[in-house]
Amino acid sequence: MPYSEQFCPSFQHAAELLGKRWTGLILKVLLAGPQRFSEIADQIEGVSDRMLSERLKEFEAEGVIERRVYPETPVRIEYRLTAKGQALDAVIEAIATWSHQWVEAAPVLVE
Amino acid sequence: MPYSEQFCPSFQHAAELLGKRWTGLILKVLLAGPQRFSEIADQIEGVSDRMLSERLKEFEAEGVIERRVYPETPVRIEYRLTAKGQALDAVIEAIATWSHQWVEAAPVLVE
Repeated sequence: MPYSEQFCPSFQHAAELLGKRWTGLILKVLLAGPQRFSEIADQIEGVSDRMLSERLKEFEAEGVIERRVYPETPVRIEYRLTAKGQALDAVIEAIATWSHQWVEAAPVLVE
Repeated sequence: MPYSEQFCPSFQHAAELLGKRWTGLILKVLLAGPQRFSEIADQIEGVSDRMLSERLKEFEAEGVIERRVYPETPVRIEYRLTAKGQALDAVIEAIATWSHQWVEAAPVLVE
């Protein structure tokens, strides 16, 4: 019986999520613990607020991160990895290991 | 010091390669051993010859597969994973493990 994408749509979905720009770096930053938007932004050079905001919304929709609002004055909003997000660490490590061993640094394209 | 894509362009490059459509299935098929174009195509339901050809060319350019031409009559052409391509198995397994555990089957979009 031939393989088809129906055979494993969840694989494709996961691989596409990981292949999106900034995904790896944002997850790496959040592995250190819950953080505010500006704290995440400060740790990733070159990501625009618009892009970071878009990725965080996608991650939230995927259940990879959770957005918590603390009703303080001023209001405090933090992003943290869920268990599903923390489990991505193993995947990111596998990609990192392979890429460091086998991929030469490619030229960085300016967006 | 903030992270930047310069910090790890090879990670991004690898993640994007894996996120491309059909990548996972084609590599999975080739893990079984060297195969001809038509043999690969027969094992993947829904991939067009054009798409498969495009992916194989990309993989060859990445050094993930090797294209061997045997000067027989008729000529025989086989595709096989390189060591770099075989090493991707661990990455694919990591993505598969995560996606099976955490990702619900998403609706398959028709291209």
